[in-house]
Amino acid sequence: MPEWEDKKALKLHQRNTLLKAFEAPVDSIHSVDQQNDISDYLDHCELLSSEEKKITNSPIKLLLQQYINNNLTAEKAIRTYCHRATLAHQLVNCITEVRFEEAIEEAKKQDEYFKRNHELIGPLHGVAISLKDNIDIKGFDSTMGLIALACKPRKENAAIVNLIQKLGGIIICKTNTPAGLLFTETTNMLWGRTLNPYSRKYLNVGGSSGGEGAIAALKGSCFGIGSDIGGSVRHPAALNNVYSIKPSVGRIQTYGTQSGQPGQESIKTVYGILSHYLDNMTYSFKVFIEAEPYKDIDAGCIPLSYRKYTLEKHQPLNIAFLDRDGLTSVTPPLIRGLNIVKRKLKAAGHNVFDWNDAYFKSMTDCMYPMYGANGLTTLKELLKQSGEPIDSRMQKSIAGAKVMPVSRLWNYQIQRTKIVQQYLNYWNTGSSNGRLDAIIIPTSAFPACLLNKVPPQPYTSMWNALDYSASTLPVTRCNVKIDRPVKKDSYLSDVDRDVHDTYRENLIKFEGGPVSVQVVCNRLEEEKCLAITKYISSLLD
Amino acid sequence: MPEWEDKKALKLHQRNTLLKAFEAPVDSIHSVDQQNDISDYLDHCELLSSEEKKITNSPIKLLLQQYINNNLTAEKAIRTYCHRATLAHQLVNCITEVRFEEAIEEAKKQDEYFKRNHELIGPLHGVAISLKDNIDIKGFDSTMGLIALACKPRKENAAIVNLIQKLGGIIICKTNTPAGLLFTETTNMLWGRTLNPYSRKYLNVGGSSGGEGAIAALKGSCFGIGSDIGGSVRHPAALNNVYSIKPSVGRIQTYGTQSGQPGQESIKTVYGILSHYLDNMTYSFKVFIEAEPYKDIDAGCIPLSYRKYTLEKHQPLNIAFLDRDGLTSVTPPLIRGLNIVKRKLKAAGHNVFDWNDAYFKSMTDCMYPMYGANGLTTLKELLKQSGEPIDSRMQKSIAGAKVMPVSRLWNYQIQRTKIVQQYLNYWNTGSSNGRLDAIIIPTSAFPACLLNKVPPQPYTSMWNALDYSASTLPVTRCNVKIDRPVKKDSYLSDVDRDVHDTYRENLIKFEGGPVSVQVVCNRLEEEKCLAITKYISSLLD
Repeated sequence: MPEWEDKKALKLHQRNTLLKAFEAPVDSIHSVDQQNDISDYLDHCELLSSEEKKITNSPIKLLLQQYINNNLTAEKAIRTYCHRATLAHQLVNCITEVRFEEAIEEAKKQDEYFKRNHELIGPLHGVAISLKDNIDIKGFDSTMGLIALACKPRKENAAIVNLIQKLGGIIICKTNTPAGLLFTETTNMLWGRTLNPYSRKYLNVGGSSGGEGAIAALKGSCFGIGSDIGGSVRHPAALNNVYSIKPSVGRIQTYGTQSGQPGQESIKTVYGILSHYLDNMTYSFKVFIEAEPYKDIDAGCIPLSYRKYTLEKHQPLNIAFLDRDGLTSVTPPLIRGLNIVKRKLKAAGHNVFDWNDAYFKSMTDCMYPMYGANGLTTLKELLKQSGEPIDSRMQKSIAGAKVMPVSRLWNYQIQRTKIVQQYLNYWNTGSSNGRLDAIIIPTSAFPACLLNKVPPQPYTSMWNALDYSASTLPVTRCNVKIDRPVKKDSYLSDVDRDVHDTYRENLIKFEGGPVSVQVVCNRLEEEKCLAITKYISSLLD
Repeated sequence: MPEWEDKKALKLHQRNTLLKAFEAPVDSIHSVDQQNDISDYLDHCELLSSEEKKITNSPIKLLLQQYINNNLTAEKAIRTYCHRATLAHQLVNCITEVRFEEAIEEAKKQDEYFKRNHELIGPLHGVAISLKDNIDIKGFDSTMGLIALACKPRKENAAIVNLIQKLGGIIICKTNTPAGLLFTETTNMLWGRTLNPYSRKYLNVGGSSGGEGAIAALKGSCFGIGSDIGGSVRHPAALNNVYSIKPSVGRIQTYGTQSGQPGQESIKTVYGILSHYLDNMTYSFKVFIEAEPYKDIDAGCIPLSYRKYTLEKHQPLNIAFLDRDGLTSVTPPLIRGLNIVKRKLKAAGHNVFDWNDAYFKSMTDCMYPMYGANGLTTLKELLKQSGEPIDSRMQKSIAGAKVMPVSRLWNYQIQRTKIVQQYLNYWNTGSSNGRLDAIIIPTSAFPACLLNKVPPQPYTSMWNALDYSASTLPVTRCNVKIDRPVKKDSYLSDVDRDVHDTYRENLIKFEGGPVSVQVVCNRLEEEKCLAITKYISSLLD
């Protein structure tokens, strides 16, 4: 047996052993063939007690209230989340690293602290948190689906881990990613594929924070942290029907995390939050910012305080709608999703109008080459070291990857900076209503993509290149009776044609697929972005 | 005659023609042999009227007050500054582009506006400003000392130009730089050398904002704007005995400016302010920030408001002192300068202590290769186009310059990010007094370097790599009777040995050289940095 097989077997064994304590018997879990959509399975099955269901259906603020009122211990809540996360894993294969024992120990200590001091240890006291696999925790691997990185525990905590622990947050597990975070589809040779809870058989869980998307959908943690360099938080959040925020660079810590292209800074990686609960997302973002992490946690954070943003009554918002990204136009369910939001906002008295996909094409042209400008050398070396098999997706990327000379990279950077400046002007003057408050745009042409069929997504990556703040919120779900394929007269590109052909030819597979949109605000306008997201969400209720 | 000579002659002729209106007869200006130190020449000679002297010795706030009280017109003030700038140029060769006619027209319009509206047009109404040559003004060249770029007027204003004009500021001229901004010594084949007003014969004006340093010393503008990627604002400010601030990335606009290495982002260029007047520097910084340029002027600016910083009485500051930069240790006049500041702060009850030059060497090792990682291709192409002669300094740099593969650049970036994070920890925990408030460190081992003898300066570039805020303030001047060379037992490096040999062997040439220090605060702490600078300056009075 080649060495990589041994290593893989060992790593899987280690994880599976740690999951055992909370596992349900295999035959008590519905198989994919028995039940395709298991998004609400855990709230209806009998694997969780009603108390456990209640706990995992409580937003953070309610949990904290219960701790304060002595109605619940952190230990109980954390054990419950470990249980639910394990069941989620059994359903969709989302967990990589398991931190249950440590989490329970930490919860016990917090209960003792509370008993002694009659106060919570911090704003995330007893809050169960999951992390994308590339976020380093001392003593745990950051494999990113690469066998080469298995059984190589990291020596330091990532900055975000230090912050979470300082605030009392309890990390219960890490979750699955594409190999080397290279794709927007979460499958790899080490952990296998993570399934989409809304359609385990047909629909893609998205990526690269696919494990986080799935665990959020199944309420396996209060919230999760993922990285986003082109949509890797927002895409899986959207495909899993949960909320997410991708901030601009400098608000949430990145130091001490891993990447397939370490050192790449032309489009900087940011970390964002995913949660089933809008309130958990806004709450955790606020406490992260209020902790002033720039002072001692991460030198990359900027000293920007939390700026409460209040929507003025009688002050109409200026909201632009985009149904295309220069490469593809969205399929019918997304059109319907956009129209739902548009109608609600219009009815509430806001200025809503269609926007142009200007600058998407030119930005894509300079952005995509920069992502892999090191010729994927780091990844290639890792794969060579372990000798592990390389899946066809990765093989294709690697085969074409060449190291770029710095002079070319700098030319791309000049081009990007130019477009960023032009877009600010477009944002301010591109509509007759004046400066935009937000753009509403889907994360993908599809309501969750099919397996092995994920088109590139300037829908999301554009806002990384511009460094704008962007959230996602669930709007509806695909209903193939309503969302009929349309015959288009012309297409934006071959990819666009393929998208619409795929939708038409596989219609039934899209049934029930989550339909989400992004709320995009300008750079470092996270508070505003979250406020508008909350507002739109309230209109949809 | 080769084409470049024609072009050079034409360009010089054009500039000289525009300067004529305000020029003094050549024989009325003291030659270098007649007077070496002309730093206070313009305030004592008879080339300026007493009224003109009074105007150019008024800080901005006083000018504005006089405008409001109808005691002075903007036209009169701007004409006066054009006159003084021209005389300064005749003394030290600092001006490249001349904008006198336009400036006077703008001033006239502002006077009309004031007459009509009884209010100033903006916070920089009638304020004469000079710009480093690499800042684009529509219709003017940005040659950076390269003949290749002569007679190629720029098509757009830089963002900072748009902001200045929005605030009412009046740009009177642009000033000299090293060819391609490549050195910390302001001399080039197009404009020649800019001289140091404090010692035209022996001492270096510094660079790359050398023209700005010299014009500030001679009060030829109210303040100037320069770029700084390794010390290019602070070094010439220090060598010319004026104040300066180099902010962190994101506070003062950079968009639309030129550089010898366009697209280089590993260590980002920032723009800073130089002025003879501390108050002009703090005032202009404040109005730049309060204009919220991130909204519509420059997408690279961050939405950080002006945060007034007040030094608490009875709250001792924690101030570290550094007399070395990993490569060289400072010469005796700088030791004395540091001690003056140290004694004053100590007497005022603050914690002062010596600091270690940890991380300087490791940062230099990864920082310097990144600056020219494009193999200076842009510069090489420009030089090739024009066929202009290449001076020996540049020839040396170009000969060794090779395009780096992106994979290596990314490795350097990883290394830099690591040191930035480590330094934050060092800043917080490196002294027994807790988190630092500031570091006091010179900008150079020398009190102004000799001509053609400028060592590398991690003293300044370290804070670019860390993206910290840093000011400079004049402390004293070299007095060779007191500042005797010392025999050292050991040296930090060969460069260090050469520095001290140079000082000893050329002692008399350093007489009267400005002795300045930097006040370094953490990232984006400009308001604090300026407050501490002002405080130290008040202690020195």
